[in-house]
Amino acid sequence: MTVQKLRNRLYDTEEIQRKDNRFLHPWELMEEVGSNKRTVTAEAEGIYLYDSEGNRLIDGPGGMWCVNIGHGRQEMADAISQQIMRITYNSPWSTTSGPAAEFAHQLAKRAPGDLNNVFFTTGGSTAVDAAVRLIQFYNNYLGRPEKKHFIAREKGYHGSTYISSSLSGKIRDKDFLDFETDLFHHIPCPDPLDKPADMSDADYLDKTVADLENMILEIGPDKVAAFVAEPILASGGVIVPPTGYHKRCLEVCRKYDVLYVSDEVVTSFGRLGHLFASEDVFGIVPDIITTAKGLTSAYVPMGAMLVSDRIISAFDKDKGGAMYANGYTYSGHPVAAVAGMKNLEIMERDKIFEHVREVGPYFQEKLQEMRDIPIVSDVRGMGLMGCVECLISDGSGGGGEVLAMDYDIGNRIDAHCQKRGLLVRPIINMCVMSPPLTITKDQIDDMMAILREGIEATMADVIAEGLWRPAA
Amino acid sequence: MTVQKLRNRLYDTEEIQRKDNRFLHPWELMEEVGSNKRTVTAEAEGIYLYDSEGNRLIDGPGGMWCVNIGHGRQEMADAISQQIMRITYNSPWSTTSGPAAEFAHQLAKRAPGDLNNVFFTTGGSTAVDAAVRLIQFYNNYLGRPEKKHFIAREKGYHGSTYISSSLSGKIRDKDFLDFETDLFHHIPCPDPLDKPADMSDADYLDKTVADLENMILEIGPDKVAAFVAEPILASGGVIVPPTGYHKRCLEVCRKYDVLYVSDEVVTSFGRLGHLFASEDVFGIVPDIITTAKGLTSAYVPMGAMLVSDRIISAFDKDKGGAMYANGYTYSGHPVAAVAGMKNLEIMERDKIFEHVREVGPYFQEKLQEMRDIPIVSDVRGMGLMGCVECLISDGSGGGGEVLAMDYDIGNRIDAHCQKRGLLVRPIINMCVMSPPLTITKDQIDDMMAILREGIEATMADVIAEGLWRPAA
Repeated sequence: MTVQKLRNRLYDTEEIQRKDNRFLHPWELMEEVGSNKRTVTAEAEGIYLYDSEGNRLIDGPGGMWCVNIGHGRQEMADAISQQIMRITYNSPWSTTSGPAAEFAHQLAKRAPGDLNNVFFTTGGSTAVDAAVRLIQFYNNYLGRPEKKHFIAREKGYHGSTYISSSLSGKIRDKDFLDFETDLFHHIPCPDPLDKPADMSDADYLDKTVADLENMILEIGPDKVAAFVAEPILASGGVIVPPTGYHKRCLEVCRKYDVLYVSDEVVTSFGRLGHLFASEDVFGIVPDIITTAKGLTSAYVPMGAMLVSDRIISAFDKDKGGAMYANGYTYSGHPVAAVAGMKNLEIMERDKIFEHVREVGPYFQEKLQEMRDIPIVSDVRGMGLMGCVECLISDGSGGGGEVLAMDYDIGNRIDAHCQKRGLLVRPIINMCVMSPPLTITKDQIDDMMAILREGIEATMADVIAEGLWRPAA
Repeated sequence: MTVQKLRNRLYDTEEIQRKDNRFLHPWELMEEVGSNKRTVTAEAEGIYLYDSEGNRLIDGPGGMWCVNIGHGRQEMADAISQQIMRITYNSPWSTTSGPAAEFAHQLAKRAPGDLNNVFFTTGGSTAVDAAVRLIQFYNNYLGRPEKKHFIAREKGYHGSTYISSSLSGKIRDKDFLDFETDLFHHIPCPDPLDKPADMSDADYLDKTVADLENMILEIGPDKVAAFVAEPILASGGVIVPPTGYHKRCLEVCRKYDVLYVSDEVVTSFGRLGHLFASEDVFGIVPDIITTAKGLTSAYVPMGAMLVSDRIISAFDKDKGGAMYANGYTYSGHPVAAVAGMKNLEIMERDKIFEHVREVGPYFQEKLQEMRDIPIVSDVRGMGLMGCVECLISDGSGGGGEVLAMDYDIGNRIDAHCQKRGLLVRPIINMCVMSPPLTITKDQIDDMMAILREGIEATMADVIAEGLWRPAA
């Protein structure tokens, strides 16, 4: 199988790794520039990656929550190649193209409520950046320039431009970087692990919703422009909010004329078994949805922001002069739009959303079984998003005792799993999973078997190294 | 030719335009949402676009300064399609791919000086955003958090994220939008048209360089982080600086320990006859170069920032902990990297830089001939970048008198030219040209003939409408 897939091509791993040291990677440690030896992914098919040594790896993170329809689809390659030969690129400033117009139309048709206006970007970060800029534009136009404060959540992740990263609440990412702090505020995210033991679920829900309302009141409702939230906090560690949370938050937003931006870069395009999760899973119709990743299943970079008619209609047609002077060379790139349309066609034709609704519960059930490994302190998820957390820093450490904190535990599990045929996404002490949505139950079994072995091998290591000891 | 190219495919222009109204375009006028009728570009080949009605148009702006190798290259389609079937996507956080590593290596090898570190993004805006964030990161790390002020130029354009747009100095884009204004400053751009009639070229050069030095001194050198400049101001109207300007500015920057960011999103990849213009055309080795557009000739969205070893080596390898927590899902996308490599291969194999150096002067010479049209007030450019300006707002209006200012004159010329087979890029009263770099002298003749007719027809209109009258 391996040899077949690599088709006898030779990859010079050392040579690639040497050249790779000219490539500054995201979240690069500056002191490691020039001396990294990253895994070289060479080929891919379906849910599998093949490294340059010929090892087959299940793509646990589905790229980066994004290869939703799986790798190496010939019909995607064909559609993209045909569009390149039809028209490579047109400027979206003064012209349009059939694919961009059609894709916008198809998205608008399927989006919740009146989210009928599609602004294309190059990825999730630029979609969120565009949303912030649109809201600033909107409130300036409406003559309320003071209504510019944004509320987001701790542990949230919203992107990597200056302004989208300022909305993010992940503390570890903030060293040495600058952020907008005057106008951006963070409230606690509702995390079942943070719920006090003596608090009921209903009270905890009330508390987390009150966090939002209190922050609005503290800043002053006339000054708060928008609340920005992921339906499920993704890279913050797959944190699923209490039932009813988003609905209640939307009601609070409506009460104070605060816009609700649902950041669906991860949760849209099938990850939770629906095209968009906002309405179908969480029962809300927000004012803006941001999306990317699954939008094209990563075949061609693309992001989008979907905007409500309500926002657009606030601009006076007779008055004129409201130019939203924002946008990208690659906004509505015709090749990206074709990739998006083919991706959507495959998802609907192959009933991928239905498939996720069927295998998702099985995936979650198998993941929950990891709880019996003593080093595991929490397991959570929804649809085809999952997270296994180990050795949490409060010292509880699952079924044992943390003797010395090891922030590298996710990387250790990843290394053990890679040896056994699974790539996981390590985030400090967590392993995050979001495989291609086409994964079968058998493949889930394979994935979980390797994950278990990888975690158990890591547990043996940390016991041997005196970092952790199991409960007596 | 038209029928051949459209291959008997039918395009329903009205239907596409109707659906296109779900697509919020860059620089969209909010009051026009839902009622636009944009030109539908349907097919393309070489320097030609074909609209959905079957009309052939020379692609005057080369997409958006980006389709440098021309449209519809079969070998690009093949390389892209093959890479999709090899590997669609890998996460650049924990893994790498051959194409991204190889492309970074190739760029570093060709970049000026010690600009050996390549950070990939999704386009020019995110490249500039990443440069600002890297510089903030760098100065925080070095323990000088107050060194955060950025200086850019009026009429400059640097992108559409909040922070890159804040560097831009184009005033008309600022209505109703918000910008970083505390830390970002703008100095006049050196514009030959702004030079007082009684000032020598040498004195004007001194004055524009002094603008930079004075701004640094006014803010305080300890507080100025970087100067950001396009080698030629592109969408500001193709403004070519006086000879020696960039070299002198770099000397000023070095004197005060201010970094120099050369924004080559437009000028790199052959537009001026060289891979990068900073060193080969303007004689400077900056600290950071940002690039995009011609980087992949727009076949697949991609941008990049090239960073000097000097910056990277400022991070202490022994101290550790300097994580540049920035980057994109699509940083180093393997399909984009393959497009970039094939693009570079074509440029070098087909001697496209040499071709631009040969036809560029001819293009400029023909463009200068437009000066004999009375409505034309200025003509300027370099390489395959050009601009014809009409009816400038100071009332001089070329060889005549402006009776009423018409901000739509660029659009009028574009409309007249489109009818005759040329798409131009209108910017208020300017027509900007940046055709695919493969354009031949014969094709330049065609382009210029149509442009002349379009401008003359527009002149007839503005005379008839009483907006302008020729000198007696």
